[in-house]
Amino acid sequence: MATYINPLIIQRADPFIYKHTDGYYYFTASVPAYNLIEIRRAKTLAGLAHAAPRTIWRKHDTGPMSQLIWAPELHHIDGKWFIYFAAAETTDLDANGMFQHRMFCIECDTADPMVSEDNWVERGQVQTGLDSFCLDATCFEKDGELYYLWAQKDPEIKGNSNLYLAKMQNPWTLKTKPVMLSKPEFSWEGKGFWVNEGPAIIHRNGRYFVTYSASATDENYAMGMLSVPDNVDLLDPSNWSKSKTPVFSSDLTTHQYGPGHNSFTVAEDGQTDIMVYHCRDYTEIKGDPLYDPNRHTKVQPFTWRADGTPDFGKPVPYNYD
Amino acid sequence: MATYINPLIIQRADPFIYKHTDGYYYFTASVPAYNLIEIRRAKTLAGLAHAAPRTIWRKHDTGPMSQLIWAPELHHIDGKWFIYFAAAETTDLDANGMFQHRMFCIECDTADPMVSEDNWVERGQVQTGLDSFCLDATCFEKDGELYYLWAQKDPEIKGNSNLYLAKMQNPWTLKTKPVMLSKPEFSWEGKGFWVNEGPAIIHRNGRYFVTYSASATDENYAMGMLSVPDNVDLLDPSNWSKSKTPVFSSDLTTHQYGPGHNSFTVAEDGQTDIMVYHCRDYTEIKGDPLYDPNRHTKVQPFTWRADGTPDFGKPVPYNYD
Repeated sequence: MATYINPLIIQRADPFIYKHTDGYYYFTASVPAYNLIEIRRAKTLAGLAHAAPRTIWRKHDTGPMSQLIWAPELHHIDGKWFIYFAAAETTDLDANGMFQHRMFCIECDTADPMVSEDNWVERGQVQTGLDSFCLDATCFEKDGELYYLWAQKDPEIKGNSNLYLAKMQNPWTLKTKPVMLSKPEFSWEGKGFWVNEGPAIIHRNGRYFVTYSASATDENYAMGMLSVPDNVDLLDPSNWSKSKTPVFSSDLTTHQYGPGHNSFTVAEDGQTDIMVYHCRDYTEIKGDPLYDPNRHTKVQPFTWRADGTPDFGKPVPYNYD
Repeated sequence: MATYINPLIIQRADPFIYKHTDGYYYFTASVPAYNLIEIRRAKTLAGLAHAAPRTIWRKHDTGPMSQLIWAPELHHIDGKWFIYFAAAETTDLDANGMFQHRMFCIECDTADPMVSEDNWVERGQVQTGLDSFCLDATCFEKDGELYYLWAQKDPEIKGNSNLYLAKMQNPWTLKTKPVMLSKPEFSWEGKGFWVNEGPAIIHRNGRYFVTYSASATDENYAMGMLSVPDNVDLLDPSNWSKSKTPVFSSDLTTHQYGPGHNSFTVAEDGQTDIMVYHCRDYTEIKGDPLYDPNRHTKVQPFTWRADGTPDFGKPVPYNYD
């Protein structure tokens, strides 16, 4: 099985890797200053540690896209590139003590998305029908239809955010009403804060599996999982199952704290499944944790159990010389 | 000869590597937000690409150490750790269009300098007798005496900064009057700005060689070199020679632009000399170049000519997969 040097990429949180048809792995993530979106690419996952980034979008001076640029994801849809990201108008918290992010979409129609910022066009906010804190959108295709999967606050529900799903009429516009797939309800989803965020999806063994992250982004951060058969209506929440326990969490013995905000890719062999996530290696954070830059990107292979579910194991220890 | 994957470390400018007696390579550099000083360490140079940093000092909210933390260097002197760094009170330029940095020193008396910020003590500004823009201090020992080598503005001399040398009575206090070793005078030292900065020293073949960086920090940035026999008074400027041409500069054919701000270390074999420097891989910078994060740390072996002088070759191309 493939092994990788971990951490793979220093000081990149909310990591997202996409293996494109051009043979490159594309990588984007939150940068410590939360001020821009960058992309790097390499032909190997190991190469991403050394790959030179390009800034492809930067925050506005003022307005809804001027602060705290979080968790970009790069998707290639019908021959064009799209990035979803969360942005806020202010770093201030609202009356409920929440950040004030909304989700936005930018598009690039050149084959190489790294050529220039000038090639990226803003498609505006992705409206969900609910004007509240939202973040961490991803998307996927099923039966020729595009789905949008994200985290959002509902003022009627305890906690910071729940997970929602909707179909899209184009990459920045929903065409169905959001349905809630999960809310923080178990104790391990409510340590520090009640949170479900950072969804990622993988299709295998006749099912869709959605991993997500729960609790505060400290050592309590952990991954949960939802699943649904792939031959039913994904927009019917009753078709979904939810794991009662986390599927991936801190390993105190190896100082791997708060793994999560994952994405999925595949190894260079085209077969081995790889989970991409971030993790800290200490718990005592001085100052504002938001500006502690040391969430590092890790990658590790995972396998599938006989019952068809993924076995993520535990966060691998660091192994650099 | 050792080969390394370049760039070695993404988005770290003004890189400094020190190989300590504990077997670790210690690395520090300017971080893109210029807001803190961090250290990482690894047993190999390649490991530094993956090594988890620790913040060991962060900028003050206000005052002379509150802005633009630049170019830290880590030194081990008489059993204690010291870091020299430049800091400013404001990001504003002064009446001459210059940044307003001064040099500061912090000290740590624990064997492991990465344990905690709490172990680091501020020793204040390093006073040179001239109250002007200064930066990029390094130090070295010769015949049991400690020397301080840095860049500073003299209002009487054209340009941003010259190179100065003095003896120290302790790691944060000079004991002799600064003598000027070099000022920007050749055309390649004055492209964009007239600059001599970022000195680094290496002792070999009966001489001390001081490399430094000249011109603006764009593709014109290039390295010059001074040298002096090791059996004369280093504080007599007339003993020093200066190369009339750069010793290291951009390679346009491989898109390596503005190499400089170097330091020296030795390979894992204990013998091969290694030059550490930063470099950009594009020239079209959008927005304020100061906040373009893409100066990356590179490392490459170098050799010595028959006449005893170093041959740095040219910036190696990127070689990641």
